[in-house]
Amino acid sequence: MKQEFFNLQINTNGQNLYEFTDQTLNWINENNFKNGILNLSIQHTSASLVVQENADPDVQTDLIKYFDKLVPMDNSLYIHTTEGKDDMPAHIKSALTNNQITLSIKNKELLLGTWQGLYLFEHRLESQKRSIIHHFLGE
Amino acid sequence: MKQEFFNLQINTNGQNLYEFTDQTLNWINENNFKNGILNLSIQHTSASLVVQENADPDVQTDLIKYFDKLVPMDNSLYIHTTEGKDDMPAHIKSALTNNQITLSIKNKELLLGTWQGLYLFEHRLESQKRSIIHHFLGE
Amino acid sequence: MKQEFFNLQINTNGQNLYEFTDQTLNWINENNFKNGILNLSIQHTSASLVVQENADPDVQTDLIKYFDKLVPMDNSLYIHTTEGKDDMPAHIKSALTNNQITLSIKNKELLLGTWQGLYLFEHRLESQKRSIIHHFLGE
Repeated sequence: MKQEFFNLQINTNGQNLYEFTDQTLNWINENNFKNGILNLSIQHTSASLVVQENADPDVQTDLIKYFDKLVPMDNSLYIHTTEGKDDMPAHIKSALTNNQITLSIKNKELLLGTWQGLYLFEHRLESQKRSIIHHFLGE
Repeated sequence: MKQEFFNLQINTNGQNLYEFTDQTLNWINENNFKNGILNLSIQHTSASLVVQENADPDVQTDLIKYFDKLVPMDNSLYIHTTEGKDDMPAHIKSALTNNQITLSIKNKELLLGTWQGLYLFEHRLESQKRSIIHHFLGE
Repeated sequence: MKQEFFNLQINTNGQNLYEFTDQTLNWINENNFKNGILNLSIQHTSASLVVQENADPDVQTDLIKYFDKLVPMDNSLYIHTTEGKDDMPAHIKSALTNNQITLSIKNKELLLGTWQGLYLFEHRLESQKRSIIHHFLGE
């Protein structure tokens, strides 16, 4: 059994989807992983992980807009408001999406669909330093 | 360490929940997996995976109806409209549910609750050919 | 390869977030797990698992309130009403959050962020006995 860990750090500047598919693929290639599980877990509760279409960037714009409407930045709706109007909505958006994603690697290839990309979904307005733990377990 | 892969293909014809619990159980039995992780990942971003009640089919009807209301098929709400009025809502529904599910196998048994079934949640209106990668890692 | 299983049972009494981080950490320490995957799966479809902030309890209050508003307990909205006004909303909330979470353990430490806690999100009004399967695979 082979196990490797890698902490991918991404600096975000505002609400957006930040693609990191290439960084993940590079790490897999550098380590020559053959078959196994790749577990990704974000170490925060105000940003999340999503697998989304990477063909048309309009998809990402629509996603951000939709989630903003679904979870309004309106302090009158929440008790937890001390960290800013975007903080409680960020926690809710995190609960509605994912903190972690587990992917499969077969014959050195990460099994993603043709149009699938890996994204950090930042829900805070100000700049943040985010950590996404990469953990490979396999052969 | 034993690893096996299987690409389960499901032909869908419209928005619905398609149960595939039996196909997954058959694959586990045929391969005589004893203890390990089963990672399921759908290779698309306009359909998703859910674990839901398989006792009363009304639950599935209500789920589909709820998600349709939550994410309206209304082109005026989205920029990404070239692939049809159901496409952007499909990406959003995918983000709100799951692209992948990791399950546990113990003593040759898939650890699902009494009423839990595995479902492909199709969000597109037209017929689609969907792939759900099954990846076993264990003994 | 080392594999261990543990069924954590939690008695819930109404809609709430029940933290179980300590029980999970205790099990990891008792078993002296070094590096590996920890897969958590809840065996129900009317309660779910979330990783959320454990610093300010107001976050949990706001989360519960938000989900109640997003998925109303209104029998006129659903067909599946025989199990009570809270049952179909519970299935929907379960689909919107997670049935399972996969975490990583490195050097005997569960890789959670500073403010991250593990929670059972109970969506039913009456008391329930819930099972969260813990499955370790690693070394």
